[in-house]
Parts: sequence; C-alpha cells; structure tokens
Amino acid sequence: MKRTLIKGATVLTMTDETPFTGDLLLDGEHIAAIRPNIDADADEVIWAEGMIAMPGLINAHQHTPMSLLRGFSDDLKLMDWLDRKMLPAEARMTPEDIYWGAKLSMAEMIRSGTTAFADMYIHMNEVASAVEETGMRASLTRGLVFVAEDGGRRMKEAVELIDRWNGKADGRITTMLGPHSPYTCQPGPFREVIELALQRDIPIHTHLAETKEEVVRIREKYGQTPTEYLYHLGLFEQTHALLAHSVHLNRRDIRLLQGMRGGVSHNPVSNLKLGCGIAPVPDLIDQGITVGLGTDGAGSATTVDMFATIRAATWLQKLDYGDPTRLPAWQALRMATLESARLLKLDAETGTLEAGKKADLILIDIRKPHLQPVHTIQSLLAYGADGSDVDTTIVNGRILMRGRQLLTINEEELYRQVSRRAKRITDGL
Amino acid sequence: MKRTLIKGATVLTMTDETPFTGDLLLDGEHIAAIRPNIDADADEVIWAEGMIAMPGLINAHQHTPMSLLRGFSDDLKLMDWLDRKMLPAEARMTPEDIYWGAKLSMAEMIRSGTTAFADMYIHMNEVASAVEETGMRASLTRGLVFVAEDGGRRMKEAVELIDRWNGKADGRITTMLGPHSPYTCQPGPFREVIELALQRDIPIHTHLAETKEEVVRIREKYGQTPTEYLYHLGLFEQTHALLAHSVHLNRRDIRLLQGMRGGVSHNPVSNLKLGCGIAPVPDLIDQGITVGLGTDGAGSATTVDMFATIRAATWLQKLDYGDPTRLPAWQALRMATLESARLLKLDAETGTLEAGKKADLILIDIRKPHLQPVHTIQSLLAYGADGSDVDTTIVNGRILMRGRQLLTINEEELYRQVSRRAKRITDGL
Repeated sequence: MKRTLIKGATVLTMTDETPFTGDLLLDGEHIAAIRPNIDADADEVIWAEGMIAMPGLINAHQHTPMSLLRGFSDDLKLMDWLDRKMLPAEARMTPEDIYWGAKLSMAEMIRSGTTAFADMYIHMNEVASAVEETGMRASLTRGLVFVAEDGGRRMKEAVELIDRWNGKADGRITTMLGPHSPYTCQPGPFREVIELALQRDIPIHTHLAETKEEVVRIREKYGQTPTEYLYHLGLFEQTHALLAHSVHLNRRDIRLLQGMRGGVSHNPVSNLKLGCGIAPVPDLIDQGITVGLGTDGAGSATTVDMFATIRAATWLQKLDYGDPTRLPAWQALRMATLESARLLKLDAETGTLEAGKKADLILIDIRKPHLQPVHTIQSLLAYGADGSDVDTTIVNGRILMRGRQLLTINEEELYRQVSRRAKRITDGL
Repeated sequence: MKRTLIKGATVLTMTDETPFTGDLLLDGEHIAAIRPNIDADADEVIWAEGMIAMPGLINAHQHTPMSLLRGFSDDLKLMDWLDRKMLPAEARMTPEDIYWGAKLSMAEMIRSGTTAFADMYIHMNEVASAVEETGMRASLTRGLVFVAEDGGRRMKEAVELIDRWNGKADGRITTMLGPHSPYTCQPGPFREVIELALQRDIPIHTHLAETKEEVVRIREKYGQTPTEYLYHLGLFEQTHALLAHSVHLNRRDIRLLQGMRGGVSHNPVSNLKLGCGIAPVPDLIDQGITVGLGTDGAGSATTVDMFATIRAATWLQKLDYGDPTRLPAWQALRMATLESARLLKLDAETGTLEAGKKADLILIDIRKPHLQPVHTIQSLLAYGADGSDVDTTIVNGRILMRGRQLLTINEEELYRQVSRRAKRITDGL
C-alpha cells in the first residue's frame, strides 16, 4: 500500500476552528496520522508550505452529464429553459454522451477541490464507469419519473445500478434511489420506492420545493405543500432522505422535517440563477436538520465550483436577514464538508481530517495576491478562495490532481469529445 | 513605439454581441486595428487560439489599501466591523502601508482581468505611485469627511492630488473629488466641493444610500432621503458624479437621478456580504441612468475579482424579480466594461475594443473543464469564468501579465511586505 507524507501544511481538520502547522501521513486509502511533526517512511512526500490542507469538498446535488449543456440556455424563463432547450437536448443524449459529460463535470470538480458528490441522472452505468476511472467518490442515483408508463424500465435500471455498483470501485461508489420530485412521482410509485429503500437499506435522493410553481401545482393536485406530500408518504419516518433545494418551506413544513434522517442539500447558485428564492437555511439548522451544500447541474448553475457555492450560501443569508453575522465562514465550510458527508451517509469515512478516515483531502495554495495577507484562514477560504486555488486533490489516498495537473483524465481528449457531442446534441435547438 | 500583434483570438469587442475569430494590432498605447486577419510587422506576436479577447474590466468603486484588512473582521455587525476593527486599524496605517496595500489590490486586479479602477482613500499620493509603477489605469480620489475640524488639511490634500497627478503616468491617472457620503459631509462643505469640481471640471466620487441606517440618519437630520439631500445640494445638475452603492433608493429618488452626468457603481458582493440589500439596478437602467460595477474594498468584499462581481450582479436581479431573464449575461458584461468606463469618464478611451481606443484588454483562456463546451461565449464569461481564467492583461498597450505571470510587480516582496504590515496594523485589535 502506498504511503504519502504531506509536510508543513496549515491544517484545518474541520473538527475544530483552529488551524495548525503540521503533517499528514496517508497509508493506502486512509489517513494514518495528523500531527505537528511526523517522521515516517513514505513512497511520496509532498511539501505543502504555504498551503492549507482541508477535507475535500462534498457536492450534495449534481447532475454531472448536464455539463454538456453549460451555457446553452441561460437567461430564459424556467419553462422555456426546460421545454425548449433541456428536454429536447437530453432526449438526444446517448450513453456515450452521458459518459463524457459526467467526466467533464468530474474534471471540473477535481480541479476545484471536490472529492465526493451525489449524482442523479439517466444512463448511470456510464457515470459509474467515469467515477471508477477518475478516482472520485460518489453516491449515484438513477432519476425516476412516473409521468408515462414505461413497463417498469426505470425502476429496473435503478435496481440494476444498486446491484452492480453499490460498494464498488474500492468502495468509492455508493448508490441511492431517486424518485425525482413530488410533481413527477404519484403517491403509489413513490411509496413503492420508499419501501424498496427500506428493504435494501438504501437512501433516497429527491428534489423538494425548488420553485413556487411546484408549490402551486402540488396544492392544486393534493391540497398539500410538497413537504406535506412527502411527509404523508412516510418519507421522513425511517428513510435516509437527501432533499435537494427545499427553498419553499413554510414553518409547518420545517417542523415536519424535524428528526428526519438525511437532510437538505442547499443549492444557492442554481436557486439564484433560476430566480427560485432563498432557502430557509438558518431555520432548518435551528430545528436540528442537517443542511449540506450542492451545486445542481452545470446546465442551470454553469459552475460546479463549491467555493463559489460556499460564498453564495453565506451571502444569501446575510442578505435575507440584513445581518452580516448570519451563516459565518466556519458554518458554511462545515456545510460543504461534514454536513454534506452526512447527507451522503459518508460522515464516518470523510468530511473531516481525522486519523482512520478515508484520505479525501485538498491542498489550497494561498500564495496568491487575493489570499494575502492571512488574518483568518476560514474567512479567506469562505469569502476569497476559488476552486482554481486548489493545488492538489486526493481521494481514497490517490492523488487525482497535483500542481493543477489532472492525473486520471486526458484533458485534450475530453475537450474534443465534449465539443463534438455538445454540438450534435444542441444542433438546431 | 512598440507594436504587438494578437493572432487568432475569439474577439468580443463589447460593441456588439457576436464574437468573431480574428487579430488585434496594438500600436503604442492604442488599438490600431481589429479584423479577421492582420498581416503586419510587430515587435511581439501573441498566439491567442483558444482565448477570448475582450476589453479589460473596470472596477468603478475600490478602496485599494483595504486589502491589508482582507479577512480581518468578517461576520461582524456593521458598526462593530467599522468601530472596533476598521477604524482603529486604519488609524495605524502609514503612507508606506497604503502603498503596499494598494499594490496588493493592483496585483489581484491585474491577475483577475481588471485594467482600470476608481479609488477613494487617504494618502493617495502613495496609491498614485503604485498606479504609476504597476501600469494600471485609475481615477483617484482623496476621501473627504467633515466630521471634525482639520484646518482644511483634507481639502488641501484633495487639491494637491489633482494638481500633482491628474493626467500623469502617460495619461493613465485621472482624479476625482471625494466628499465621502451624505452622513459624513454637511451641506456647507459638500456644496464647496461641488463648486470646486465644476470650476476644475473634475468629477465627484461619493457613497450614496448604502445602508438602511444611513437612510434613517439622514431623515432624522435633514428630513430627506440621502438622494434628496444630494439633489438639493445640486450634485445632479452639472457635475459628473460617481455614486457608489445606491441600494436604498425609492421611486422618487430614482426620478431625481434622471438626466444626471455619471451614474451609479453597483457593488453587489459588498452589499451581499454586509447584508445591505439589493440595489434597484433595472429601475435605474430603465430611467436611463448609467450603472457600472464595482467591488468596494477587500476589507468588506474580500475578493475584488470583477468576474465574481458580474455573476453576483446577475444573480441578485434574477433573485429579486424571481425571473431568470433579468440582467442577462450581455448586460452584466457591458456594466463591467463600457458602463463602468462611462462612470470614470473614460468611455472615449476604453470599455470596448475599437481601433483608436487605448489598448486596455484581456485574454481569457477557455481551455478549462469549467469553460467547455462552448455554446455561448457571453454565458461562459458571465456565469462560468473566474479572474483566474485571465491569461494576459494589457493596459495602455503594455503587457502587465502574461501566462499568469505579473510583469510589473514582484510578488515575493509584495507578500513579505503586506504580511508584516498587516500584522502590525491589526495587532491586539
């Protein structure tokens, strides 16, 4: 097993707020030790003076293949965006397109310090193959809509994904079940998915209350809020549920979520860019509900840089409350690491730097004009850093990027592939 | 005179929305030609395939030396931030500190594609020296507060700045007069500054309606809104005025600004981070008022990356109106270039790429995972690009950064200086 020694970093473990100068020893997939000075034999030594070592960021809500549609349909009304652009383009995507789109997202994520993500899309076998190759950690979900009869094809694919990939790629891949949303899943099939999730001990990944339109639609159909709808289906009783967005929750909705397993992925950049609104993050946290951070797909958010997401999350709460003390730097950094890990049910393995946990970590180079001088590390990371300041990305003990060079992805081939495929998919739309 | 030929760029002139592949010839300080193919002798040829050439970004509101206080006092209430942290730290700053802080901001700006900025602070001689050395373009202002009798010292310094620096550094430096704000300048001295500005044909740079507290304070004192206060002083009659922030304007305030010379610097990142609110940008634009973009100082905003500012500006309006079509990519890019140039009274010289204008431009490398594939250049720039994607920055025909290497600033010395000085300034605070 390979041993890597990282020397002289400014270490922010994310277990407490005080950084210290020290070393990390990685042994195979795990962190073997973290302390001020480690003398040990290692296969590789990384000199990390002037760099911050912190846990890799965890993106709790992605649709990785949508990177093929980045910048294709911005500044449009939500329904035009969906009906005239996204859906026709997605209908043209082949499994190979999905593979390359997912890989493009992974290249962007590795380069911006994300080590793990939760993904929901179609053709997830291809996404899993890309995860296996690129070396990232991911929780994969086949999205399930029940709007037209499909003879059980989608459910079959969802179960096949679990059987084939759960626990694979040295344990880097886990899986969830993905009933898409209250407005695309009727009570009958949604209940069946919940039952299956409990039988198989698999979490559920779904969208909740992203837009006002959704709230109106569900009220017209069921006389309930979207949250009440899921509550009455029993989703919050025993299932570990990852709820993406959760923007339009009233106070009663938030009480219904109390005590749930899993929690909310807050996706501020997508919510801003689509004009959806501000999720009630402090209220959720006050009620003990786990809130992590995600980006949503690049088709809506454009960027999947989690540093941009951290910043946007803090900004939104400061704006909403007219109070600069809201959602401070440390809390936002925790949301992007440990809280997101909780949502993915990976908090025993990742989300903080601790001996015994998996070696998922990043080195951030702060010898840059925009990250000097150094008064408070957390402030610089939350309000000043960009994904491009990440120098090194390590997942499961394997170095995926070093000195900003991707080690598991051929970038030239990637650009050729996605350029050609993007053109074909969107031609004439 | 040096001639530089840029070959094979994707050129976005910002005069119209359609980019084209082409060449630019720079002759001395000016753009000599822009067209699909230029064959000409040149002292230096830059091969720019895979790069976007666009006008340099213009930051319409900065306090450059505050970079020394980046990350020093985040997540605090506004008055704590000001009284307990900023003011005591600023009181310790020597002219040399100002010089190094300004230079740090300039290093960050050059590295993130900003070519010109409007600055207001103290010890502006030092800032001017830094501008002269670094090669940037700037409009400099000595901030004027009239809260305590100073025997005319500040006014004297303001006039000396104009006499000594206006039009200097090959014309890269211009100057403004800077009555700080409605709440720090009484009617008498504010009127004197307006008269002097008209006599000398010098624009005015001031803050307006940044916070709700300001609105309350001015109403208590004068029975007016801050905008009414400035209106009745005659600021909007003939003076070219650069109004920073302008968050809290009512409909009547906006009508009072109609027909003014100059306009508003919208500073969305600072407004978000301090929880100030959302400026009524579309209403201002609808009334024909020029709205450019600025960052405010790094003491509040942390980052002075104008790409982050562009993104934040679009997000805020989409959020405010619940409508993703608001403040589209193109409009935000225009605000950061030509509209900001108008605020600085530099639109005849910069803000677009046109033959005869000054050669202030940037090359952006889009061969990155987060900027591929290419569907719409404007979308990628407004929603996807970061300052770190800028490869080359040129001001007045001189290359200030090439391949991300700063050519007019010694970074190692810069970090040593700002680190030591920042420590001394904030020690014990």
